[in-house]
Amino acid sequence: MRSLSPGKIAVFLTVLSLALGTISMRAQFPPALNLMPVPAKAQTGSGFLRVDETFRLSFAGYQEPRLEHAGQRFLEQLHRQTALVFASRETVDPAKATLLVTTEHESKTVQELGEDESYTLDITSSGAKLHAANPLGVLRGLQTFLQLVTITPEGFGAPVVSIQDQPRFSWRGLMIDSGRHFMPIAVLEHNLDGMEAVKLNVFHWHLSENQGFRVESQKYPKLHELGSDGLYYTQTEIRGLIAYARDRGIRVVPEFDMPGHSTAWFVGHPELASGAGPYQIERKWGVFDPAMDPTNEKTYKFLNEFISEMAKLFPDAFFHIGGDEVNGKEWDANPTIQEFKRAHGIKDNNGLQAYFSQRVQELVVKHGKTPIGWDEILVPGVPKSIVIQSWRGADSLAAAAKQGYRGILSNGYYVDLGWSAARHYAVDPLGGAAANLTPEEQKLVLGGEACMWSEYVDPENIDSRIWPRTAAIAERLWSSADVRDPASMYARLPGISQRLEWVGLNHRTYQRRMIERMAGAASPEELAALQLVVEALEPVKDYTREGIGAEPTSQTPLNRVADAVFPESEEARLFSGKVDEYFASSCKDAALASELRAQLVKWAGNDARLRPLAERSFLVQEASPASSALSQAAEVALAALDRITLGVPLTPDLRKQQLDAQNALELQAHKVQLTIPLLPAFQKVIDAATAGAACTISK
Amino acid sequence: MRSLSPGKIAVFLTVLSLALGTISMRAQFPPALNLMPVPAKAQTGSGFLRVDETFRLSFAGYQEPRLEHAGQRFLEQLHRQTALVFASRETVDPAKATLLVTTEHESKTVQELGEDESYTLDITSSGAKLHAANPLGVLRGLQTFLQLVTITPEGFGAPVVSIQDQPRFSWRGLMIDSGRHFMPIAVLEHNLDGMEAVKLNVFHWHLSENQGFRVESQKYPKLHELGSDGLYYTQTEIRGLIAYARDRGIRVVPEFDMPGHSTAWFVGHPELASGAGPYQIERKWGVFDPAMDPTNEKTYKFLNEFISEMAKLFPDAFFHIGGDEVNGKEWDANPTIQEFKRAHGIKDNNGLQAYFSQRVQELVVKHGKTPIGWDEILVPGVPKSIVIQSWRGADSLAAAAKQGYRGILSNGYYVDLGWSAARHYAVDPLGGAAANLTPEEQKLVLGGEACMWSEYVDPENIDSRIWPRTAAIAERLWSSADVRDPASMYARLPGISQRLEWVGLNHRTYQRRMIERMAGAASPEELAALQLVVEALEPVKDYTREGIGAEPTSQTPLNRVADAVFPESEEARLFSGKVDEYFASSCKDAALASELRAQLVKWAGNDARLRPLAERSFLVQEASPASSALSQAAEVALAALDRITLGVPLTPDLRKQQLDAQNALELQAHKVQLTIPLLPAFQKVIDAATAGAACTISK
Repeated sequence: MRSLSPGKIAVFLTVLSLALGTISMRAQFPPALNLMPVPAKAQTGSGFLRVDETFRLSFAGYQEPRLEHAGQRFLEQLHRQTALVFASRETVDPAKATLLVTTEHESKTVQELGEDESYTLDITSSGAKLHAANPLGVLRGLQTFLQLVTITPEGFGAPVVSIQDQPRFSWRGLMIDSGRHFMPIAVLEHNLDGMEAVKLNVFHWHLSENQGFRVESQKYPKLHELGSDGLYYTQTEIRGLIAYARDRGIRVVPEFDMPGHSTAWFVGHPELASGAGPYQIERKWGVFDPAMDPTNEKTYKFLNEFISEMAKLFPDAFFHIGGDEVNGKEWDANPTIQEFKRAHGIKDNNGLQAYFSQRVQELVVKHGKTPIGWDEILVPGVPKSIVIQSWRGADSLAAAAKQGYRGILSNGYYVDLGWSAARHYAVDPLGGAAANLTPEEQKLVLGGEACMWSEYVDPENIDSRIWPRTAAIAERLWSSADVRDPASMYARLPGISQRLEWVGLNHRTYQRRMIERMAGAASPEELAALQLVVEALEPVKDYTREGIGAEPTSQTPLNRVADAVFPESEEARLFSGKVDEYFASSCKDAALASELRAQLVKWAGNDARLRPLAERSFLVQEASPASSALSQAAEVALAALDRITLGVPLTPDLRKQQLDAQNALELQAHKVQLTIPLLPAFQKVIDAATAGAACTISK
Repeated sequence: MRSLSPGKIAVFLTVLSLALGTISMRAQFPPALNLMPVPAKAQTGSGFLRVDETFRLSFAGYQEPRLEHAGQRFLEQLHRQTALVFASRETVDPAKATLLVTTEHESKTVQELGEDESYTLDITSSGAKLHAANPLGVLRGLQTFLQLVTITPEGFGAPVVSIQDQPRFSWRGLMIDSGRHFMPIAVLEHNLDGMEAVKLNVFHWHLSENQGFRVESQKYPKLHELGSDGLYYTQTEIRGLIAYARDRGIRVVPEFDMPGHSTAWFVGHPELASGAGPYQIERKWGVFDPAMDPTNEKTYKFLNEFISEMAKLFPDAFFHIGGDEVNGKEWDANPTIQEFKRAHGIKDNNGLQAYFSQRVQELVVKHGKTPIGWDEILVPGVPKSIVIQSWRGADSLAAAAKQGYRGILSNGYYVDLGWSAARHYAVDPLGGAAANLTPEEQKLVLGGEACMWSEYVDPENIDSRIWPRTAAIAERLWSSADVRDPASMYARLPGISQRLEWVGLNHRTYQRRMIERMAGAASPEELAALQLVVEALEPVKDYTREGIGAEPTSQTPLNRVADAVFPESEEARLFSGKVDEYFASSCKDAALASELRAQLVKWAGNDARLRPLAERSFLVQEASPASSALSQAAEVALAALDRITLGVPLTPDLRKQQLDAQNALELQAHKVQLTIPLLPAFQKVIDAATAGAACTISK
């Protein structure tokens, strides 16, 4: 994983123009083209195409119901964006269209990897033309048009521009884990809408886990009846979701994780397991012992029937068999399995898993699908047709490519880790060792997938853990490799985030409800104090949350401050940007100093304002250590800022003492699963206040 | 209409206890019982019933599917409120229930006016019991329980309390006009959920208007096919909504407005009209000429068939025939109609309408329904069985009751007029002349209905025009007549408003989207400036909007600042409360003065901060006169406040000059359909700053 160089991130100073060679270099606000992902080529002109109630959409060339649906959705979204009432929704005469869409021919009956998604979009002040080889390109181009529509001094409009666009990678996915926390169909639909908006094209649906088996099986109904607490998708719902995805140009790849991560299968079918059973649905998180018995022919008979059923239900050419994280304990404890290993000369559990994996892959191929699995399935001798999904990293992916295997990158795109958008954005499927692959080998790197593992998300906050950061990942996977400036990305992200709520996601609005739940009956001042602390903090990163506090389970309510805070605090990012700006002025910008001061004063005094609420609410009380740490840290930074403005430097000893204090405060916040993303900015202020540091000298 | 005395409205100083005789008088925050509507009797105890993941609901006594649905919805809502994961949703052993619900017997197959809705709810620290005669009382009691659940220092809980409750009025309605702006089923469903939450029991569905005929008629399909722009409810959808309402203890009363307000009928059926036609769907607002021909027997044949069909579709015993606002122009212009009047000795158009009304009422009765209509249908000789819905006022209702007619009040409950919650709250169906009715006559006043006419609402902002103010109306109709303290109401309204969003309404969250639409790509500072002005302003009141600006139509986008502002500004109400508090301290509370000052400084400087955005957005630009007026008015109030704190009084001349300036600024805001609700508070400051006024003397 390459870390982002901590350069100055000037918000709203768009450097989008760097990515669009033909656009002038002039930094401007608002961005010239507020698009995410950035298109391959764009030539801007001057002026706008007016978008008013006379707007008409028309389709020429190849026609199909999916295009009609796309047109309806387009007009609905355009209405949401503008509130304009379009006089007629009927198909109109192409000659009178404001936006004329021309499609050359159909796409595949079942959407395939690598289909043409290119399009051209030409907008002049009198009309717009979208042209694509097939409906997939049309879907992409319509989203580009919608993103371009904005408010102007004279009404709504789309800027004059000429775009030629196609994706860099053909596999651009989002994985949602419906196993650990069940996600209702409506939640998935909104997320498919979000995927369409940022041109993602694969929904990887993680459907079985230790904590739940989520698909109705008509052949083996005990799988979902006993393995899901009643929380599963019917086959009708699944077909509906696949059709919903197809309408949006998105493939649906199902994952049934085997031979581990499979406790929920064994509740109804203990005969598949390597242990003695009986089994219960797992309530805790982690890697567990239960695993399928790879030595029992009945396992393969069962899986043959099961895969046969699922291969018909899910039309996509790929079938994900998981394969990750088997700890081997049940295998070691089972004498029959040990005997099997000896008899077949299998020297360790990796070998046993390879044997299982090979058998399952044969079944998948038999039922007409291409197997895909996590890194672990790549063992010597496995057929070159399989696809590796790498949770281990780009180097692992590069190694696979060197052996001739196709792969997709997920390491670096785990959105459950709470990383910043910039950190995900810096990860490239062709980065690391992959950068040294030959062009032919690089073609084997198909793309990547954002992964939403669901230990700490429920239907209420999952959108906020996926979006808007996944839009940055989507840009990494669609746009040219040289579109990589985080300042430009952050300049455009708020606009995309806003539009994603228009399609039905709740990644911003969820927070107020959670704050109000934690507050109960509260005064406006108390609510404001709680909001201030929630907006300034972030959840602890990576999987550190696992080790903090009482052991969480799938029944633990996700109603705490750690569940309510954004993974990436906008407030903290904006403040940090202003601190950098202040230092760039050599601490001479007095207005900025006073703005920073006012913000620090607010944070410093906030814990006291929150106290009465903490006394009434156990959830606010629980977060008190973090609230108090934030206020104390702000207090220290405030004193340092005052020293800068007064020209009274800190001694190095005091500096060290204060930085130590900041570190201690961060640990205090960690105790309640929170982190203070403002600390690096606060530390910069302390550094700058120190005798000998740049700003004090320059005064 | 009785106007609210402008006494001090101390927010969060609950005087709820006044209403609940058995509760101590101690004013407290948060309110002892955060309930709306206030129950008839409540005896509070000490402590809480813990609500955690072991919470179990159980039903005893009479059982039916509606109770099961209610139980499921209850648990879903409890989950939303707490995020608790309840281990099992199955029916549990009554002995183990946390909340045991006992129902004596069934309610009517079709919900009837005046059915028993009473319940008792006893909550102790170890369990709760809800008891009701029939499922309607259970529905009401479950909502009371949900409102009681709150966060405490030890977890979620419901306070120990003993409640005996029943409604004051049997007809507690909300009317939604689906004619002028079509409202999708989902919008109506959310509103039914909101109605259930505040114990309203009649959904009056205004289904036909000049601008649209919204019901599928299988007998006369041209009605909806040609009269609705394709925006109508299918009979399947209607049956679904009626079932949805019944599940929530809500009757559905359909309204087909006749003989006026009926242009949309005539697009497909010009033969019903008094004019020559052809007719088009009306796009403008107002009272129009087209009216049914009351002299043509074919009209009654048609209506007989139509009412027959609709009487079967809508099971409620009441059938609303409208009857309002016929201007008579088409009648006057039609020689055949004139001849009919002469031949039948009908002396004027009122008489003609009475004739029509009588004929239609006969048809309604023939098809087994009781007619209800607006004031106009009350003419001499009309049967005593009809119900009058009064848009004219309580006096009109009282006059009807004196003649023996039943009535419901809507005058004073028109939520489209933009009044404050307090103003609606002060209106009582037994107020005005009705207060002098005999007890027997008073029984004829069945209750009231909030009316949401839809000229200036669309699916995006309608919730905000209905809620939370309709919760105050619901309390007026449910709670005892002496529950009438606006301070108590305002202390509880924010909590209810928050819970109404939990059931799916968007009356608060819509605003941010509208702000962002108006802003386009904007910096956080610009967005904050726009939000500040949106939160401080209100739409012009009553129907004054009609006369301002270009003539609006049903195609006019509702995307302006006037559409985005809340009907009642919480910011303005809170500031006004603080001004009153400051004067109550004889201007001695320096902390409060500085708080007021800071707020005024913000408003005063806001227009300048908004300027860059106004230059980029036509919608922000349009509101500039109001934004500028707000800033100027705040500037003047700021100067006055500074005079108070400095002890330098204003001269009477200056006072007059400044008050005149404020009035001029209000007129400036009116030009863009906005009003500045802060002005009365600003004027108080100016008054207090004047030489001789209380505060300057007290210094």
